[in-house]
Amino acid sequence: MVNIRDAVEGDISAIVRLLADDALGATREDPSDPPAQSYIDAFNALTAQGGNTVLVATDGDTIIGCLQLTFIPGLSHKGMLRAQIEAVRVADSYRGRKIGEALVHKALARARDAGCGMAQLTTDRTRADAHRFYERLGFTTSHVGMKLKF
Amino acid sequence: MVNIRDAVEGDISAIVRLLADDALGATREDPSDPPAQSYIDAFNALTAQGGNTVLVATDGDTIIGCLQLTFIPGLSHKGMLRAQIEAVRVADSYRGRKIGEALVHKALARARDAGCGMAQLTTDRTRADAHRFYERLGFTTSHVGMKLKF
Repeated sequence: MVNIRDAVEGDISAIVRLLADDALGATREDPSDPPAQSYIDAFNALTAQGGNTVLVATDGDTIIGCLQLTFIPGLSHKGMLRAQIEAVRVADSYRGRKIGEALVHKALARARDAGCGMAQLTTDRTRADAHRFYERLGFTTSHVGMKLKF
Repeated sequence: MVNIRDAVEGDISAIVRLLADDALGATREDPSDPPAQSYIDAFNALTAQGGNTVLVATDGDTIIGCLQLTFIPGLSHKGMLRAQIEAVRVADSYRGRKIGEALVHKALARARDAGCGMAQLTTDRTRADAHRFYERLGFTTSHVGMKLKF
């Protein structure tokens, strides 16, 4: 059984290593240890802003997976709270053991408990395996995800 | 010139009418006035939670467009803050006058001022005109948007 808990500041380096250990993430993260100040600032900002948490999956003391869960209040759908999942990663050596599934199930349970009416996420169009993974968990590819980098 | 400002609680009924005046929104909103309590609760929740605002475009005292802007701190991309845009609507009788463009430009300016590295949104796959609209504004359709309704 995988253990899942809320991340704390001391987990940042391990989480960043997970984010960097990825075809897309390798070029855009800085896995130095201790972590760059920008990661610490971001973790403090997401903790300070309501409705955000990072979940980590652990095997003993080792962090083997992570995701970010954000609750977004909004007026549409009769004032429905929605849950958004970002930055889902599982350590390479732990793939195929349903760690990602356990993380997403935990996030969905948290979302339901908080009264969310929907969960949403976007995945890069090139991540075909990710699309199949989320479809198996009940997500439907109903939208296109558009990004504008500054 | 269209005027754009942050929404206040007294704007909720007008915003909900915009959300309801839409092919998809007509079936899922309650445009009664005064607004249903669920809308008031949602507006208070998004005001209380940091990083959320609703922008409204006005013509005199009339609300003619709206969108929701959410700032999401996160660890990925070296701790990049991202901006998310939801629930963009323009009153039917004001379409074709670049109101939506003005709203999105204002949201993007707010996002840049806040230090965001990216803006993102999802649009229903059936809204082909919306895809073209956002591509004209610089967004790229790099992702798929997946939803799971509870």
